[in-house]
Amino acid sequence: MIERSQLEQAIALGRAQPLRYEGFSYVRLLEPVRGYPRGSAVLPDKSVVPGYPSIGRIQSLEAGLPRQFRERFWAEEKIDGFNVRILRYEDTLYAFSRGGFVCPFSVDRVPEFLDPAVFDAEPGLILCAEIAGPDTPYLEGSTPRVAQDVSLFVFDMMRLGLPGFLAQADKFTLLEKYALPAAPVHGQFGADDTEALGRLILRLDAEGAEGLVLKTDDGRERAKYVTGGSCVGDIGVCAEQLLDLPPQYFTNRLTRLAIFLAEHPQSDSDAAARALGRAFLEGLGDAVAQSRGQGRVSHRYRCRFRSEHNARRFIQHLEATGGRHVRIGAAMPRVEGDFWVLEFERLFDHMTGTLSSALAGDRQYD
Amino acid sequence: MIERSQLEQAIALGRAQPLRYEGFSYVRLLEPVRGYPRGSAVLPDKSVVPGYPSIGRIQSLEAGLPRQFRERFWAEEKIDGFNVRILRYEDTLYAFSRGGFVCPFSVDRVPEFLDPAVFDAEPGLILCAEIAGPDTPYLEGSTPRVAQDVSLFVFDMMRLGLPGFLAQADKFTLLEKYALPAAPVHGQFGADDTEALGRLILRLDAEGAEGLVLKTDDGRERAKYVTGGSCVGDIGVCAEQLLDLPPQYFTNRLTRLAIFLAEHPQSDSDAAARALGRAFLEGLGDAVAQSRGQGRVSHRYRCRFRSEHNARRFIQHLEATGGRHVRIGAAMPRVEGDFWVLEFERLFDHMTGTLSSALAGDRQYD
Repeated sequence: MIERSQLEQAIALGRAQPLRYEGFSYVRLLEPVRGYPRGSAVLPDKSVVPGYPSIGRIQSLEAGLPRQFRERFWAEEKIDGFNVRILRYEDTLYAFSRGGFVCPFSVDRVPEFLDPAVFDAEPGLILCAEIAGPDTPYLEGSTPRVAQDVSLFVFDMMRLGLPGFLAQADKFTLLEKYALPAAPVHGQFGADDTEALGRLILRLDAEGAEGLVLKTDDGRERAKYVTGGSCVGDIGVCAEQLLDLPPQYFTNRLTRLAIFLAEHPQSDSDAAARALGRAFLEGLGDAVAQSRGQGRVSHRYRCRFRSEHNARRFIQHLEATGGRHVRIGAAMPRVEGDFWVLEFERLFDHMTGTLSSALAGDRQYD
Repeated sequence: MIERSQLEQAIALGRAQPLRYEGFSYVRLLEPVRGYPRGSAVLPDKSVVPGYPSIGRIQSLEAGLPRQFRERFWAEEKIDGFNVRILRYEDTLYAFSRGGFVCPFSVDRVPEFLDPAVFDAEPGLILCAEIAGPDTPYLEGSTPRVAQDVSLFVFDMMRLGLPGFLAQADKFTLLEKYALPAAPVHGQFGADDTEALGRLILRLDAEGAEGLVLKTDDGRERAKYVTGGSCVGDIGVCAEQLLDLPPQYFTNRLTRLAIFLAEHPQSDSDAAARALGRAFLEGLGDAVAQSRGQGRVSHRYRCRFRSEHNARRFIQHLEATGGRHVRIGAAMPRVEGDFWVLEFERLFDHMTGTLSSALAGDRQYD
C-alpha cells in the first residue's frame, strides 16, 4: 500500500505518473517510491503491483553457481518475450508492462491463455508471465517455442499486498490446478551440478532456446544464464538498428558469447563464428537495402487483436509514446479472419541518416 | 609562423604545450591556433609543421566519386600504419606523431629508410609518411605490405611556411630523384571509373591491403576508400579491447563493411561473414584466456631501436603518457643483434574488470 499523500507527493515530484485505462485510474512509478521499484503500478485502492525485479546474470556456471547459490535451485526456461504482470481487479483483467503501463495488446490476448477460475479462487493473485512469439508489437525476434502468433508462459506469482514471490511449491500447485501455461521447468540442481547444467544449456542452445532462470525454493535467490545462440540471435534481429541501440546491447552479447564458448569448448566455435558474422551482416545488409530502396531503415511489426477497441487503444498508446519514430498505416487495424491485425513500422533515425549520407557519396570523418 | 606572443597566449590558455626533445624546444598544438590545426608543431624559430589534416572517407564509389571529384585523381594505396611528419631542422632529423610529439621511435628508425640528400637539396621539406609493420609501438595489427620489423612509405610532402601539400607531379619528381620509399600509386582515374576502381579495390582486398587515398593533381581534393577486409582486420586486432575502445570503432567498421559488400556483390559474403565472426570471437576468446590465465587483459607490443638512448627516451614517453596502463619489464630495452628491443604491455581496464567479474561468478545487471 502507498498512502494517498505519499502518492500525491511522488506525482508532484515527477516520480510517478497518473494514468487512465478506460475507466480504470492507476499510477505507474517512474522511480522507486516507498520501497516499491520503478515499474510498479498503484491501483485505485492504493494497493501496489510491484515492479518485476531485474534478475542478475551469471556468465559462468562453474564460478557462478557456488557463488550465488547455497541451496538447491530450480532451472526454469527463460522465454524470449516481454514481461507482463497479470491480475484481476474488480472483475476486470489487467496486464501491466515492465514499465507499469496497462498494455492493451496483453489485455486483449491474455484471456485466451488463462482459466479465469484461478482469479475466482485466488483473489489478489498476480501472474508474472512472458508473452512471446512472432506477432508481438514489441519484439523484433521470436522464439522457437512459439511457432505462430503469440503464447503466454507463466513463470512467477505474487500476491497483492505481500512482498516477494510465491514459493516454488505453491506456484507449481496453482499452475497444475488451473492448467496455466508455464515456462518449462528443467529440474532441480545444486551448485556442484555444473556438468548436468552444462549439458542442459547446450541442449537448449541446440534447440534455439534463450536460456535458464535459476531459482531457489523460496524464490528469493535467482540468477539467469543464457545460451551462446541467444547472444547471436539477439545480434541478428537487432543488427539493422546497430547505430540506434546503445552499443552495450552488442558489446554485452559479444562478451557473453565469448565467455560461453570458452566455458563450453565442446560447442562448435566455427559454426558460432559463421553465425555471428551472418547475424551482423544480414541485418546490416538488410538495412543497406532498405536505405537504397526506400530511403529509410525501419522494422515492421505485426500483431493481432481480438477486439477492434483494444487495437485502437494500442494505436493511441503507440502514438503517445513512439512519436514520429512510429508509422502506422491509415487502414490499420484491418480485419483478418477473427482478428484485427495491426501492422506498423518503427524507424531507426541513426541508421537512416548514416546510411543515406554514406550512400549519397558524402565524405565522412570518423 | 606563429608570433611569440600568440604562442605564449595559446600556452597560457592550455591550447598548446611546450615540450623538449633533447636540446630541441618545440610546442605542440592541442587545439587549433591561428589557423594551424591540432597536432601542429611549432619549431624554435616559430615556423610551423602543420598538423596532418584528416581525410574524409567515402563509403560508396558510385555515389562518392562524382560527388567528391570534378577533376581526375590519383589512387594511392593507403598503408595501415601510423602517420609521421619528418623534417630536418638545424642538421637534425625530427619525426612528429599525429598528435605533434617528437616520436623517439620514429626519430630512431626513419634515417635508415631515407636518403638525407633530399633535405640538403630541399631545405624546409616535410615528408608525410606512414610507418607500418609488425614491430611498431603503437599498432596492434600489421599490413601484408611489410613482412617484418617496420617500413616507411612517403605519401605526401609539405614545405615549411607554405600552406597545403606539394602538387602530385612535384612529389613524384622528388620521390624518384631521391629514391624515397613511397606508398604504391595505382594510377589516375576519373569520377566515372567506378568499374576500374571497383576491380582495383577488390584486388587490394584480396591482397589484404587497407585501401586507397584518392587525390587530385594539386593535392587539394582527397578522399579515402577502404577494403571490406580492412574493416574485418581492424575488428580482429582490436576485439580483445572491445570494452576499452569507443564503441564507434566497431560500429563504424561494421556499417562500412556492410556497405562495401552491398557495393561489391561479387565479393564472397559467406567468407566475409565467417571472417567477421572469427575476428570478434578469436580476439574475445584470447581476452577470456588472458583473464583466466593471468587475471588481466592486455596487448604486448614489441619494437626495435638502433640506439639505446632512443629506446630509453621512448620508455620515458610511454611512462609519461601511458600511466598505469603500460607495463614495461625492468630488463627493457634488451640487446638483440644490432638492435635494442623494447617489449611492453598495454592493459585494458574495462576488459580486465568485466571479464574477471564474470569469470568469478558475479551476478551482473545489464
